[in-house]
Amino acid sequence: MSASAQNEHFEELSASEWFYRNRDIAGFTNPARAIYATVREILENSLDSSEMIQVPLKFYLRISRVGEKGEDREETLQVHAEDNASGVPREKIASAFGRVLVSTKYRLRQTRGTFGLGGKMALLFAQSTTHQPFTVKSSVGGRHPIIEYSMMIDIERNAPKILKRRRHQNPHGWHGTVVDLTTRGDYNHARSKILEYLAKTSIASPYAEITFVDPDGLLYKFEPATDQMPAVPGVSKPHPVGLDLEMLRRLIAASKTTNLQAFLCKHFQRVGPITAKRLLQSAGIHQRRDPHKLDAAELLQLSNAMNGFEGFKAPDASCLSPIGSKQLEAGIRKQLDPEFVATVSRKAASYSGFPFICEAGIAYGGKIQPARIDRVPLIRLANKIPLLFDEGGDIARAAADQVNWHLYNVEQEAPIVVVTSLVSTRIPWRSAGKEMVADRPEIERELVNALRECARQLGRFLSRRAKVAYERKRLGVFEQYLPKIATFATRLAGKEKVPDVKPILRQIAKYGYEDSEDSDD
Amino acid sequence: MSASAQNEHFEELSASEWFYRNRDIAGFTNPARAIYATVREILENSLDSSEMIQVPLKFYLRISRVGEKGEDREETLQVHAEDNASGVPREKIASAFGRVLVSTKYRLRQTRGTFGLGGKMALLFAQSTTHQPFTVKSSVGGRHPIIEYSMMIDIERNAPKILKRRRHQNPHGWHGTVVDLTTRGDYNHARSKILEYLAKTSIASPYAEITFVDPDGLLYKFEPATDQMPAVPGVSKPHPVGLDLEMLRRLIAASKTTNLQAFLCKHFQRVGPITAKRLLQSAGIHQRRDPHKLDAAELLQLSNAMNGFEGFKAPDASCLSPIGSKQLEAGIRKQLDPEFVATVSRKAASYSGFPFICEAGIAYGGKIQPARIDRVPLIRLANKIPLLFDEGGDIARAAADQVNWHLYNVEQEAPIVVVTSLVSTRIPWRSAGKEMVADRPEIERELVNALRECARQLGRFLSRRAKVAYERKRLGVFEQYLPKIATFATRLAGKEKVPDVKPILRQIAKYGYEDSEDSDD
Repeated sequence: MSASAQNEHFEELSASEWFYRNRDIAGFTNPARAIYATVREILENSLDSSEMIQVPLKFYLRISRVGEKGEDREETLQVHAEDNASGVPREKIASAFGRVLVSTKYRLRQTRGTFGLGGKMALLFAQSTTHQPFTVKSSVGGRHPIIEYSMMIDIERNAPKILKRRRHQNPHGWHGTVVDLTTRGDYNHARSKILEYLAKTSIASPYAEITFVDPDGLLYKFEPATDQMPAVPGVSKPHPVGLDLEMLRRLIAASKTTNLQAFLCKHFQRVGPITAKRLLQSAGIHQRRDPHKLDAAELLQLSNAMNGFEGFKAPDASCLSPIGSKQLEAGIRKQLDPEFVATVSRKAASYSGFPFICEAGIAYGGKIQPARIDRVPLIRLANKIPLLFDEGGDIARAAADQVNWHLYNVEQEAPIVVVTSLVSTRIPWRSAGKEMVADRPEIERELVNALRECARQLGRFLSRRAKVAYERKRLGVFEQYLPKIATFATRLAGKEKVPDVKPILRQIAKYGYEDSEDSDD
Repeated sequence: MSASAQNEHFEELSASEWFYRNRDIAGFTNPARAIYATVREILENSLDSSEMIQVPLKFYLRISRVGEKGEDREETLQVHAEDNASGVPREKIASAFGRVLVSTKYRLRQTRGTFGLGGKMALLFAQSTTHQPFTVKSSVGGRHPIIEYSMMIDIERNAPKILKRRRHQNPHGWHGTVVDLTTRGDYNHARSKILEYLAKTSIASPYAEITFVDPDGLLYKFEPATDQMPAVPGVSKPHPVGLDLEMLRRLIAASKTTNLQAFLCKHFQRVGPITAKRLLQSAGIHQRRDPHKLDAAELLQLSNAMNGFEGFKAPDASCLSPIGSKQLEAGIRKQLDPEFVATVSRKAASYSGFPFICEAGIAYGGKIQPARIDRVPLIRLANKIPLLFDEGGDIARAAADQVNWHLYNVEQEAPIVVVTSLVSTRIPWRSAGKEMVADRPEIERELVNALRECARQLGRFLSRRAKVAYERKRLGVFEQYLPKIATFATRLAGKEKVPDVKPILRQIAKYGYEDSEDSDD
């Protein structure tokens, strides 16, 4: 007994190795998903990096087949991607591309990538299926040269392995990044998702120019709709509500403040001296205490008080860049051409100290196809990334399922589409493949509220429409019979001139008689 | 421009830190999920470890509140778990409990845990919400003492931090592990899922005795149904189909063989000299070539040939331990009490070199409540773990949705439950929370086939039942009128004795006249 336990083989994996073995977690679950995820990770990095330097992105992507088009689902593909974004500083290229869990995006800032993982998973996957090196060419512009690396990743050690290094002149101060990799994938089955992804991305990030040449030589071009860049997302301090004990402990350890009131004011957003004092009173800890001298029980007390305290101002949303209610409506009208649209952009809220904003839209009628409302069609966005897979595990699905559509006069089969958008300095992704947002109760509540607000608007529209239809019908009956009754009564009374019934009809009509007359023409 | 890129802050996270920040990926998404995931990870480790030493598991779990029951959703909970399984060798305790991505389970063997992550995520989560140390007491039995550690995890460095170490006498040779931790969670909202999880686990692992004392002091006991342990899951070599290039390269690097034929025979299951030779012919590489001297193009050639070659035997399933068609049927009958059950256990197949077996069951009628078949109710098992969350993102849901139930005579609303079970040396989990299996096409195909086999049996049952019902009705008409016609005809003919119509009825009845007579009594 003891022997078999003693013989157990304990092994430690590098982060690269772990993700290579568990690549399904990062969305690389099958050959079609793999090429889709590769495109996505590269484009999202380019979008983030172009927003950072406020230059409208020009993104060029070419996927080509190595060899003939075969019968197999899987084929060897060459991916070439080029952007005009920030570029990567020379001394950072090796670790930015060759080491998993290295990133610039670990700060409290709204970005598409957050994991230090996505782009490298694409490289890891390419390498593990073709064993070809990839090349990176990059410059940060100005007088900096263009640096070209041919590299692989040493998966077992999670370290870059440089095969070749070159330096090119950069007379025009070009900045950007070019990546070339050879991977395996199933383009035929990924095509529709890739095109859907590019189209929706170009709506959510309308400043980007996206050009795509596919393996069959077809060219797709998504023109920018604006040259306005969204503001550079700011870096923010944490909001006190929802912050966990570990983060609180770290903030204290890193802080030079010597009393709790000052500590709270300095390291948290939306906390002034008075709020800090009231909070500390509710925690039963004196405001002059040195934060570094709190024991574990007091820390927990403080953390619980922070989570339970109701006197905080709403989190600072200035670091977030939501789509906005009007822009969302415009986007929906452009894409879906419905009869009715309601959109809502909620105030900022927070979970675990991270601010977030929920937005929602409901489109109804017009060119929308009818669908069953117990699985109401959803368009999901998170930090402006369209999410196309795994809807069943997403918080937006759960939120939409909580809305009782019948309450809002929506029929069992209705021409309806629901749009949800969440922006946050940290989206709580359920998987590293970034297709599902986890069910944090604070976010779910906000999403449900946003959807209900839209649904109420839709409900009013539908109930008014139903009343109008009912009144039209009622008026129709009067219109048909009143003149006859009038004629008959006139004749009965032995009179000549039939009285005008229109004033009576106009009096009965609740929603305008003219309307109804028009429609009779 | 270059300035802002230069100023970008590149940061590397430890694996602990990364998972702490992205705890949603491991299933710790909200206070209710967190306590559920904690229970689950601890119990699954105990189950794996008891199977390894072939001792029926006795598992004792107690969750208690720290302080009064409050109004909040979230509360501080003390978790105490005790097993009689293998225990952890003294020198391994610190890293087994204090370092993420360390595991005994990285080999090709069917186990519940695979990530080196789950148990530690529970500890990480506990620490980050309460900042209390946890204690581990363990012995591997025999003459080994009992070692007790009071520890924390240094999250930023992914390293154990030992606060106290004690050594206890072990006069009775006890082996097992006791863990005590203090965490935050929402037990009230997790209760039903925890109980459902324990109940289903006790069905899938019937040798385990599970005792649970909940925070309200209620005791739940799940008695073992057998003292038979499943065989120790074996460690297997990879199957050549689906193996990726990176793995192939590593096998070659580690191998001492000097020709390809020998290499293939030695390191793969189900490959003999003849198969190896035919495979190498199809790859166009000579069998005497030294595997260490293949270039990248030849490696890819070999890898592609391995994936396309049709001459391999099915993977060796001896290392797998499926539930079995009969046991599955018995389990379903016991739990659901249906009128009809069909179960199927497919032959072993493989994806990416990992063998797997799909099993399925369909239960119909009896005590099952009717449900809409477009969202047919599912019970999902993976390596005998019941999966209770995130069904929408699971391959079993996708497979069940592919079955056209109408083809098998199932009505729109039917009393039906579908059970799927997948066992593999490596389940392709979609998230580290182990609630969703990724959509590998090889697995999906097998699952769909298993479900269709069951559905055909159900279809035959239903169509026979419909025919019987129809015949009963038809016979009923004859039964009602034939005697009357006979009496009438007898009278018309002026005869006395009415002839016996039963032989005629018996002739008409396709599915037994006796039956129908009985039901008339």
